[in-house]
Amino acid sequence: MHHLHREKLFSLLDDKESAIVYMKGADLMYRYDTDYEFPFRQESNFWYLTGVNEPDFHLILDLKNQDYHLFAPNRDAQYAVWHGRVKSKEQLQDDYQPDHLHYEAKLPQVLQELAPEKIYCVEEEQAEFIEKFERDLPIDLDTLEDALTHCRVFKTDWELDQMREAARVNNIAHKAVLKALEPGKYEHEMKAVFDYHQIKNGLMQDAYNGIFAAGENSAILHYVENNREIKDGDLFLIDAGYECNGYASDFTRTYPANGAFTNTQAEIYEAVLEAQKQVIDAAKPKAKMEDLHILAARVMMQGLKDANIVKGAIDDLMEEDIFALFFPHGLGHFLGLDTHDVGGYPKGVERIERPGIKYLRMRRTLQPSMVLTIEPGLYFVPALLKPALENDKASKFLNASKLNDMMDFGGVRIEDNIIVTEDGCENMTTVPKERDEIEKIMAG
Amino acid sequence: MHHLHREKLFSLLDDKESAIVYMKGADLMYRYDTDYEFPFRQESNFWYLTGVNEPDFHLILDLKNQDYHLFAPNRDAQYAVWHGRVKSKEQLQDDYQPDHLHYEAKLPQVLQELAPEKIYCVEEEQAEFIEKFERDLPIDLDTLEDALTHCRVFKTDWELDQMREAARVNNIAHKAVLKALEPGKYEHEMKAVFDYHQIKNGLMQDAYNGIFAAGENSAILHYVENNREIKDGDLFLIDAGYECNGYASDFTRTYPANGAFTNTQAEIYEAVLEAQKQVIDAAKPKAKMEDLHILAARVMMQGLKDANIVKGAIDDLMEEDIFALFFPHGLGHFLGLDTHDVGGYPKGVERIERPGIKYLRMRRTLQPSMVLTIEPGLYFVPALLKPALENDKASKFLNASKLNDMMDFGGVRIEDNIIVTEDGCENMTTVPKERDEIEKIMAG
Repeated sequence: MHHLHREKLFSLLDDKESAIVYMKGADLMYRYDTDYEFPFRQESNFWYLTGVNEPDFHLILDLKNQDYHLFAPNRDAQYAVWHGRVKSKEQLQDDYQPDHLHYEAKLPQVLQELAPEKIYCVEEEQAEFIEKFERDLPIDLDTLEDALTHCRVFKTDWELDQMREAARVNNIAHKAVLKALEPGKYEHEMKAVFDYHQIKNGLMQDAYNGIFAAGENSAILHYVENNREIKDGDLFLIDAGYECNGYASDFTRTYPANGAFTNTQAEIYEAVLEAQKQVIDAAKPKAKMEDLHILAARVMMQGLKDANIVKGAIDDLMEEDIFALFFPHGLGHFLGLDTHDVGGYPKGVERIERPGIKYLRMRRTLQPSMVLTIEPGLYFVPALLKPALENDKASKFLNASKLNDMMDFGGVRIEDNIIVTEDGCENMTTVPKERDEIEKIMAG
Repeated sequence: MHHLHREKLFSLLDDKESAIVYMKGADLMYRYDTDYEFPFRQESNFWYLTGVNEPDFHLILDLKNQDYHLFAPNRDAQYAVWHGRVKSKEQLQDDYQPDHLHYEAKLPQVLQELAPEKIYCVEEEQAEFIEKFERDLPIDLDTLEDALTHCRVFKTDWELDQMREAARVNNIAHKAVLKALEPGKYEHEMKAVFDYHQIKNGLMQDAYNGIFAAGENSAILHYVENNREIKDGDLFLIDAGYECNGYASDFTRTYPANGAFTNTQAEIYEAVLEAQKQVIDAAKPKAKMEDLHILAARVMMQGLKDANIVKGAIDDLMEEDIFALFFPHGLGHFLGLDTHDVGGYPKGVERIERPGIKYLRMRRTLQPSMVLTIEPGLYFVPALLKPALENDKASKFLNASKLNDMMDFGGVRIEDNIIVTEDGCENMTTVPKERDEIEKIMAG
């Protein structure tokens, strides 16, 4: 189905000039100076255009003729002994369907025959590589990346199906963790259960380094140690997902480790859940992501106010950036071949330099076929709250005695993955998030 | 216990000169131009000397005073929000016990105060970094790496205990796979079971990209696709292990997928097992690894001859490199902080440029406290056998009709991890390898 991606790209680039696109696929990556080999994972733009998830390929797109040249590495018998069957040219043609299939040694000759007047590249190093063959040609390092980013933001039906499949397996794995959760187990045991279900279902590549965080660790946004015992009374936060054919899934849930929310946990949880639901209801074409972010923040501030943790008018809590103390990350991000997918800030759109929104990873007006996460959260982070309690401007909005008791509370985040549709959105995440549903499953 | 490692290194370097060792620990690694972060894993030499498995540290060893300076990165509140608690200086001191603990900004000043006349580094890039502060000093890029390699080859008791723990968990995980194996499942389901038991037991980092290979895939030495269905009649080869505190485990077993070896599978399996046992019996101080490699090859050739797959005198099969067609890799390698650990070829010792032995990863005389793998194997690799059958010199040793039927047989490898002791070796691997034991477990 990757021919559709090439067609999209061709439609964005001028077919009147005698120009080519040149890209190199990824090589194997090793750790430091050792032979520890990372599992191969194609670079996302190359994967997007080719569907090739093997190392050492190159591509040329001839813009004038809209021709696709794929260059395969030439493997010898020794490669077959160590790394596996060497695909024949017939098999490569069958797998990837280029208009022209070559071995990589042919690259200079093809380049000479195409005789382009300009080369589009995405990356300095690749530009330098291709320049060795065609020294005097102008190389454009901006246009291609912008065009690819534009293509990747709007998913094709086939891409949406890959994301639904990644989400389907992620729903299974998250539900298995919910069932396995109990005090006395370790965070890494939850990771073991999670990875087991992903890999068993054939997804082999994590979309990112998963977070399995109990108690106060749940307030660390990128917690990855996953080695602490889960205690009675802890919240447990899981933020994890795998890829399907390169397309990521990225869900977060927060559960009470012992199966029952305390009153305070319930108050915080409901504030986050209410914000998440209101945002998902509002997520439809023409909605602006920064508006949704502020909506989520306001709903959560109301929840904290109802819980007597903050005080004052909601407008003031927003105006004075108090919300940033509890919600220090963005509401969501594009999702696709990268977990934090490309296109969140198109050219000319800048980050908003305010504490409560500067980490928002996308400022876009939602349109159909965009895929994104919706992940509000509330956290009790000593590194943020302690200085705020000692700051005159902030402390008047804070209930110090209550907050001082919550320094090890941790955090709550609830994250679903949505596809924007013509009149709303499709939510791919079906992991339980209602309090009573969670408590019922954990009681069973 | 890492102070013992530093003492070993100090004992090898001249304490009369006013010289220092400078090393930089690893940074976080990202995939391509994305924010996909690989799980952090310290560079092995730095881990060896410091025990620090966190990013962005530096060390200086002052050789004259045998002083250990550790430089920690300076983290701000924002780091705490995203990546976790920032350790206090007291906690860092407690965790790592340097003689002098500094923040990294202090590096130029400490360097100036030490006023060394020479700097030992292991790596060009680090040498360039430190040269920026001390432009006119001689930098030695050979001595330190040789000394570290010498230290790492001979494991301390504490290191051996880490390796025993990695092996203990690996024994559990391998046995779980043996019990779960059956036709109709997929290779990746075996990986799911394996990873589950490692992570559940607290080992979070694989030692290498594991191999879970059914049928003809078992003849691919570094097979990593792990996505094929396991069929009735297949052999199933698993080569996998995790690290404990950085120290690797690396076992291989080969099982009949349906629980019972066929006659031919049994013949090949017994040839490999007999070779492996004879080598382990012979693995003791003063044994030479290349002799053990040849011993294994001869025993396996006798097995293939008994099975009527090769013909001729064993001496000729060896002399004419026929054994290399079936045993195309080395007998074993050092094991430690790297899976293919350092020190296999000390200075002046070169690889033997013969087909059957050039991939041997170590030519050393065994000594107590060395840790290594013993992993003979026999494979039926079409890319090697088909040309050999058409080559006059080789084909006269081969039973063509039998071999032509075995092109999809796959391979058998049996790999244990041993510690060389005063009078023999300690085998850390307890996963069943006797045929009757395997069949009994699979029947239950």
